[in-house]
Amino acid sequence: MVDFTYHNPTKIEFGKEKENLIGAEIAKENITKVLLCYGSERIKTDGLYEKVTSSLKAKGIAWVELSGIVSNPKLAKVNEGIALAKKEKVQAILAIGGGSVLDSAKTIAVGALHGNDVWDFFIGKASIEKALPVYAIMTLAATGSEMNGFAVVSNEETKQKYSIQSAHIYPKVSVLNPELTKSVPNDYLAYSAVDIIAHSIEGYFTAPDQPHFQSRMVEGIVKTVMETTEILLKNPEDYNARAEFTWAATQALNGSTTAGTNLSGFPSHMIEHSLSALFNIAHGAGLAIVIPAWMQWYKNKNHAQFERFSKEIFGLDSVDEGILALKNWFAKIGAPVSLEKVSIGKNEISAIAENAAHTAVVWGMSDTYTQRAIEDILHNA
Amino acid sequence: MVDFTYHNPTKIEFGKEKENLIGAEIAKENITKVLLCYGSERIKTDGLYEKVTSSLKAKGIAWVELSGIVSNPKLAKVNEGIALAKKEKVQAILAIGGGSVLDSAKTIAVGALHGNDVWDFFIGKASIEKALPVYAIMTLAATGSEMNGFAVVSNEETKQKYSIQSAHIYPKVSVLNPELTKSVPNDYLAYSAVDIIAHSIEGYFTAPDQPHFQSRMVEGIVKTVMETTEILLKNPEDYNARAEFTWAATQALNGSTTAGTNLSGFPSHMIEHSLSALFNIAHGAGLAIVIPAWMQWYKNKNHAQFERFSKEIFGLDSVDEGILALKNWFAKIGAPVSLEKVSIGKNEISAIAENAAHTAVVWGMSDTYTQRAIEDILHNA
Repeated sequence: MVDFTYHNPTKIEFGKEKENLIGAEIAKENITKVLLCYGSERIKTDGLYEKVTSSLKAKGIAWVELSGIVSNPKLAKVNEGIALAKKEKVQAILAIGGGSVLDSAKTIAVGALHGNDVWDFFIGKASIEKALPVYAIMTLAATGSEMNGFAVVSNEETKQKYSIQSAHIYPKVSVLNPELTKSVPNDYLAYSAVDIIAHSIEGYFTAPDQPHFQSRMVEGIVKTVMETTEILLKNPEDYNARAEFTWAATQALNGSTTAGTNLSGFPSHMIEHSLSALFNIAHGAGLAIVIPAWMQWYKNKNHAQFERFSKEIFGLDSVDEGILALKNWFAKIGAPVSLEKVSIGKNEISAIAENAAHTAVVWGMSDTYTQRAIEDILHNA
Repeated sequence: MVDFTYHNPTKIEFGKEKENLIGAEIAKENITKVLLCYGSERIKTDGLYEKVTSSLKAKGIAWVELSGIVSNPKLAKVNEGIALAKKEKVQAILAIGGGSVLDSAKTIAVGALHGNDVWDFFIGKASIEKALPVYAIMTLAATGSEMNGFAVVSNEETKQKYSIQSAHIYPKVSVLNPELTKSVPNDYLAYSAVDIIAHSIEGYFTAPDQPHFQSRMVEGIVKTVMETTEILLKNPEDYNARAEFTWAATQALNGSTTAGTNLSGFPSHMIEHSLSALFNIAHGAGLAIVIPAWMQWYKNKNHAQFERFSKEIFGLDSVDEGILALKNWFAKIGAPVSLEKVSIGKNEISAIAENAAHTAVVWGMSDTYTQRAIEDILHNA
């Protein structure tokens, strides 16, 4: 077990109707004006917008709005938000949506307090000194962004999907009302399940020093996600399954599974980000393609842990059978498991690998993940 | 899964030599004078006192000292600390030791900022509005006090061992250097193991609504503690086992295993506190006696979960065999598993039960835990 610092200051308000608390939570910090970020206008018809803005009004909190944030959130939209936040002198950012809205909000929170081009923070040209406080009301359980200091944004000009990490961008308060995720369609529920599993297992397989306790936590998350996904695909109304799924998503990337491990990167995420950047496919769909391919490529580098995974999750003795079982499960829930399924041809592989190899340099993983290695992985897909 | 608020603001500095950071951490808050609390003078011969005070000096932080805090910490000593903290106008409390020192420090932190008799907070006569910041350097892994808002203190006059709970007494920073726990003798290591297991399973068995994910976390903690205790009893130098044991102790009572459960109390702790209050036996030793007795008494109230426990932890199909296996494991590691083992006779049972029945009223558990019910449990021991 390696030395670590664990500090996760985000307050989670979990449960039914908790979105009504947001005004009171923001008012505790004497904030009187926020930038309200969201994606589609659906929140205006399903009642959520009304609930949230009523909660703000009740505490005398004014707001300006940035809407139309899409998945694989775009730098141009973030820059629009930064300009608006500066012009309107907001004191906090409030996100309503999934990981893309929240990641945009976090990036705006950073950009609003710095003079730099915000992309500088993504490419390592500047470091984050501060940020406006961020509040979140989640309508999707997947990315874990609600309880961590990460944000991922796509630069559509340079075709780069990169991330920032800072203690300053942990949300102050995140509202997780599992009922708000009910409108997520089955394909996106499946992609979310894949994303949560990915967050859990990337460190599990790659950390050279992986304590048993952390492995057990990961296995608990994976089992819970598989179990609850199957329930929810059949019965979206099952509140308990939805709540367990939601909380597992948060636990998968709030630092608790990786504390004490010498995590050596998120290779499947790294490669997937290039798929998303170049072909704009859903992150979880891309992961379902990359993960089994990466597992095949990586399995002999940590054979004992792959054996453990096969045994614990699927009750199987063989590593190859375990990898196949996970791939089959991804397919069963409706996620694509090959490049062919998303109409990406073999001729595209070198371009994806070239893009990912650049990310590998930024993420400090280029020793192992050369363009050639990434091509080998993608050929498995 | 029930609604919950999760907010754990404690920063953990985990690993070798991390105690050297304490001065810098305290200085971040512009604190210039602390009350340094500890137990025995051993820290002055083993080098820890020197390291910590050097770290304080390096940042220009002055200190006054309160030493001689014992296990099952005493109200009189806490009141001495409160008077000292007020007189010396310290701005924070720094604890070096195990749960007893830290719990005393937390209580002093409360008392220093209130005019009330501090016992009022334990018996529900006053509520905690604020507290001085608390810092901790742990030399024992057991109580979980390093990452929660609880403190337990014994009133030696009234023979009551009661607790407080407040968001204000989460430690600001806790240093967990597993190497500092190496001097703990084997019997106290065993008691610590029992305490950690108790923290995990009290909610696991008693919450009417226990999510699978939380059950899996608890099982992961219990397995980890059992595995690492056995390693450490044979080889106290095994750093990895010590580190996993230490982190499992923290996880067992930092709120993560009980978030989303409708935890209905800590009955074994409640009864054990009376054993400690009346006979001053080690908390973990008392728990080893109470837990199997309580399990026998309670098993049919949540039979499915007891079946799950037997299966998951011991691979056994029978509930009775599972309870016996846990009791045997407690005995194997050197913890007492009957009242007889600690020379408490049957004639004492009604006095213990009477004391515990008073705690049951304070803890809101008196509907189930009448004096008669507690006597029945203790007769199993």
